Amino acid sequence: MLLEQIEKANDIKYIDKEDYGLLAEEIRDFLIEKISVTGGHLGSNLGAVELTMALHLSLTLPEDKLIWDVGHQSYTHKLLTGRREGFEQLRKFHGMSGFPKRKESSCDCFDTGHSSTSISAGLGMVKARDLKGEKNTIISVIGDGSLTGGMAYEALNNASRLETNFIVVLNDNNMSISENVGGISRYLNNVRTADSYLDLKEGVYKALKKTSSGDSLIARIRRLKSGVKQLVIPGMFFEDMGITYLGPVNGHDVNAMVKVIHEAKRVKGAVLVHVITEKGKGYAPAERHPARFHGAEPFEIESGLPKNPRNTANYTDIFSTVMCKLGQRDERVVAITAAMPDGTGLKRFHNMYPERFFDVGIAEEHAVTFAAGLAAGGLRPVVAIYSSFLQRAYDQVLHDVCIQNLPVVFAIDRAGLVGSDGETHQGIFDLSFLSSIPGIQVLAPKNKWELSDMLKYAIASDGPVAIRYPRGEAYAGLKEFRAPVEYGKSEWIYEEGEIALVAVGSMVKTAEDVRRRLKSEGYACSLVNARYIKPIDEEMLRKAAGGHKLLVTMEENVASGGYGERIRAFLDDNDISVGKMSITIPDAYVEHGNVELLKQDLGMDAASIAIRVKEWMEKT
Amino acid sequence: MLLEQIEKANDIKYIDKEDYGLLAEEIRDFLIEKISVTGGHLGSNLGAVELTMALHLSLTLPEDKLIWDVGHQSYTHKLLTGRREGFEQLRKFHGMSGFPKRKESSCDCFDTGHSSTSISAGLGMVKARDLKGEKNTIISVIGDGSLTGGMAYEALNNASRLETNFIVVLNDNNMSISENVGGISRYLNNVRTADSYLDLKEGVYKALKKTSSGDSLIARIRRLKSGVKQLVIPGMFFEDMGITYLGPVNGHDVNAMVKVIHEAKRVKGAVLVHVITEKGKGYAPAERHPARFHGAEPFEIESGLPKNPRNTANYTDIFSTVMCKLGQRDERVVAITAAMPDGTGLKRFHNMYPERFFDVGIAEEHAVTFAAGLAAGGLRPVVAIYSSFLQRAYDQVLHDVCIQNLPVVFAIDRAGLVGSDGETHQGIFDLSFLSSIPGIQVLAPKNKWELSDMLKYAIASDGPVAIRYPRGEAYAGLKEFRAPVEYGKSEWIYEEGEIALVAVGSMVKTAEDVRRRLKSEGYACSLVNARYIKPIDEEMLRKAAGGHKLLVTMEENVASGGYGERIRAFLDDNDISVGKMSITIPDAYVEHGNVELLKQDLGMDAASIAIRVKEWMEKT
Repeated sequence: MLLEQIEKANDIKYIDKEDYGLLAEEIRDFLIEKISVTGGHLGSNLGAVELTMALHLSLTLPEDKLIWDVGHQSYTHKLLTGRREGFEQLRKFHGMSGFPKRKESSCDCFDTGHSSTSISAGLGMVKARDLKGEKNTIISVIGDGSLTGGMAYEALNNASRLETNFIVVLNDNNMSISENVGGISRYLNNVRTADSYLDLKEGVYKALKKTSSGDSLIARIRRLKSGVKQLVIPGMFFEDMGITYLGPVNGHDVNAMVKVIHEAKRVKGAVLVHVITEKGKGYAPAERHPARFHGAEPFEIESGLPKNPRNTANYTDIFSTVMCKLGQRDERVVAITAAMPDGTGLKRFHNMYPERFFDVGIAEEHAVTFAAGLAAGGLRPVVAIYSSFLQRAYDQVLHDVCIQNLPVVFAIDRAGLVGSDGETHQGIFDLSFLSSIPGIQVLAPKNKWELSDMLKYAIASDGPVAIRYPRGEAYAGLKEFRAPVEYGKSEWIYEEGEIALVAVGSMVKTAEDVRRRLKSEGYACSLVNARYIKPIDEEMLRKAAGGHKLLVTMEENVASGGYGERIRAFLDDNDISVGKMSITIPDAYVEHGNVELLKQDLGMDAASIAIRVKEWMEKT
Repeated sequence: MLLEQIEKANDIKYIDKEDYGLLAEEIRDFLIEKISVTGGHLGSNLGAVELTMALHLSLTLPEDKLIWDVGHQSYTHKLLTGRREGFEQLRKFHGMSGFPKRKESSCDCFDTGHSSTSISAGLGMVKARDLKGEKNTIISVIGDGSLTGGMAYEALNNASRLETNFIVVLNDNNMSISENVGGISRYLNNVRTADSYLDLKEGVYKALKKTSSGDSLIARIRRLKSGVKQLVIPGMFFEDMGITYLGPVNGHDVNAMVKVIHEAKRVKGAVLVHVITEKGKGYAPAERHPARFHGAEPFEIESGLPKNPRNTANYTDIFSTVMCKLGQRDERVVAITAAMPDGTGLKRFHNMYPERFFDVGIAEEHAVTFAAGLAAGGLRPVVAIYSSFLQRAYDQVLHDVCIQNLPVVFAIDRAGLVGSDGETHQGIFDLSFLSSIPGIQVLAPKNKWELSDMLKYAIASDGPVAIRYPRGEAYAGLKEFRAPVEYGKSEWIYEEGEIALVAVGSMVKTAEDVRRRLKSEGYACSLVNARYIKPIDEEMLRKAAGGHKLLVTMEENVASGGYGERIRAFLDDNDISVGKMSITIPDAYVEHGNVELLKQDLGMDAASIAIRVKEWMEKT
């Protein structure tokens, strides 16, 4: 095994050139085998095997700096920097992260997770290097999908001023998470498919030379920009911004890439190396089903089919179904996703109503303001987005949607703990940042039927409404409780006394379990489904405070600015006295791992909460 | 007066063509006269007079839609839509806004304030129009500065897919708020200064025709893209994205612009009209000092000098001075601004340490992640930014800086009420969205000396620190209280009893006044300068709660997620009982107007607070 010879960073340099193909094959086999067991990002990693090899052959780590955009494609990088063993516990609680982590290796120089950050971070490191008089090489890798994010463009715009070397590798698989849409992807596609631009350039040049006025024309062209190469060379888009463009180069040819990176290092300024890769490369099921193998659950290697096929609906499925119904019922309903038609469940809506579906690329900011424009134009846009990615559009939600009180619905998936993606993807801040915004309604459903009811309610509202729901299986309990959704109203599920559990969304299920445990210990216990995080239901709170000794709020969100804090402030402002307990995510980032384990670790599982409540009751 | 003939939208169409020059002159005189009295955005409005006239001549409002990016250049638009009288109370409390407002006129179809939103909003309206089968014209106007914002690029990328008309007018004054930097501005400058690209294109074309292989070359070029026009036409950057480019056209020639907009309307798709304007046009002082006349205080028309010259330092001045000192003392200190070197006070730092100063353009997201990269590279970056603009980078602060615990200092100017810019610019959310982020320290100084001390403290910290301070005059009172800044510690100013005022930043000054009023009524009153919003000073709170009947928190921030709420949660969690009162901004947007008036209106002035406290004390 060649792979076993690579025990730490830079060991790849001892591998014979002739063996690169073999090594790539070994890496692919390793990744497929390991990810088939643990789950993880397969397609993007299979696509980046040779690219990563070429980068490691071209750099000396950790002295040189390699920044991965998003970072889920960094598995080969982890393999080549002594973390082979880590794959046994990939994305598991206390195991190796699926993303670059500074605390995991000195070869991970910058943590990533969200899209389009690598050029900004790399440019910062370049400036730091230059100011300190250091000479190392800095490479930011970015995908064509991430290039649709505005930050990447802001950074390229700045990088164009550089007079020292900075290499941006565009890992172009014409794909990103789903298919790219928009001018940039079309542009890149033209570059990809054009046969020999360079020949053409030469042809134009020679043809001009032959004409009587050719020389003066060429001279004028040279004067105008930086020469005739500007005319028809690929990458003019980048060259127009002042970025030197090299490529396109075959992203599965290690030697070709090593050569072009060597050239790139000689450029005094920002240089973009355009590498063409194939997502899922070398594993037929992943090549055929890029979306399924983007973030894969454990699968059978032979067939590519999931080992544990789902037979229950998750919230995304419910959202998907309801959106199609709403689309049928109301022509004004339109749907927006930021490059996540599969992940958010909008694919079916897309198929049914292609002209009312908009995939804007990895561009959350634009997604939200575009939705504001649609709403101002009289439509009822639904922005389907993951909680942690909506952080990108906080200002747009506030400034473009809510100040104007526009009827935009935010369908916030992956709210609360998301599990194996870890710190960067936990959706544990949305209740806080959304609640700070005047005029927005913030709701969370307790179960699958309620998500449906809330969506219908939201579409009929005349102002902004956010509905947040968690990753994974949709709770199908408490079916018999289905009071109509009313503005600002919580739902009383059980009314007993002593203890009132007021739970937000996903925590209603947990609260039910807590209640069962407390009742078995002889406590009377009421259960309220909060439903509304903003505005809070004051009447419910007065009642809950009045009839109980202890009021327990439960939410999958940080404490600061969350539901519990606002409830306490309300009770306090109104001199309502009752015992209070807030169950929240503590003020810290939450690592990757199984959600149930994480909840236990955070004391947010039913058993831990029941114990805390019991202790409080016994103390009093 | 021609201007008097324009009483409502579309009236400009009755003005004779020959009189356009005269009308433009009248508008300029009017704007200069009015703004010299009220203050306001002068330069950008003087630059957009003819452009606005041309747009109004080309559109029928309110049926057609005109979206202004940022919106502070919409004064002529307001004049031409029947709001002449409004200029008497421009930007005054309950007077006319300095920005487009849907609630002010049906001709204002979308509220703006922050940068780079107009293309997204316009594109949303285009899609709504098309889905509803309507036929109106939609024009988004965007400045070259706003074009450095990533959102604009995200939107252009999307707009390229359009098959119906959408006009983007690029109002290019080669300036934005300060000078643009980066590839895009250089690119636009090349386009601006190139003599007759079109001639050149023709030349190349003809030359190729003359050669033996010319025809086949041309055919190949045509095949490759959409024809030879792609070769050397200006605006190739946009054309590469799939946006039709028209221009450049003289932005002070009404007829030329009307003509090109007429052409633009015939394009079935997105079309960018490149208009070259001059900021401050027609008023010499504004042409000479674009930064000073960006947002001008009342001035003498003759000289252009401010009517009420400042003779006291504001917080920006203090920041400016301290940054220069810190830069001298520590080579690792670098400074970043998003296109606001003047507004944030970094201009002096720029002059002293040009290589350690970075103006990234209107690109707050990139600014923050770029700073994270600088910090990861071993430097000590200070991001100077306005509170409401930092909303744009919430995710970057959380995801790129704080998860990695990088030592980035956020110097947050214009925090709290900002006055005449109104709703979109009030810095009243930062304490909430920052406090939700684990690991960040959030501070606010009570006076000018403390801002200096906090900056020094922050630069020496090994993790992220945010310091927020208000617009306007720096408080110079309480000079004798200057305890060293210590992690997580508040500052006791007066210790008495009965009432404890715990005030955040700017509210310390107000609290002093409240205390004076309460003492004159015979109450004992302690005063604490909170200093730390995150983490909160638990020891101080225990002491304050223990020794007083009433604990009053005071902050210029919304309640939700603010200091007061977190204090209450802490006291509550720890079963500490004391009377509590929170003085905060209510859960609503705050309009424009004089800050003192706004505070009175919100009950946040000393008199109102003193009365509330007194009432509470009397009641108890």
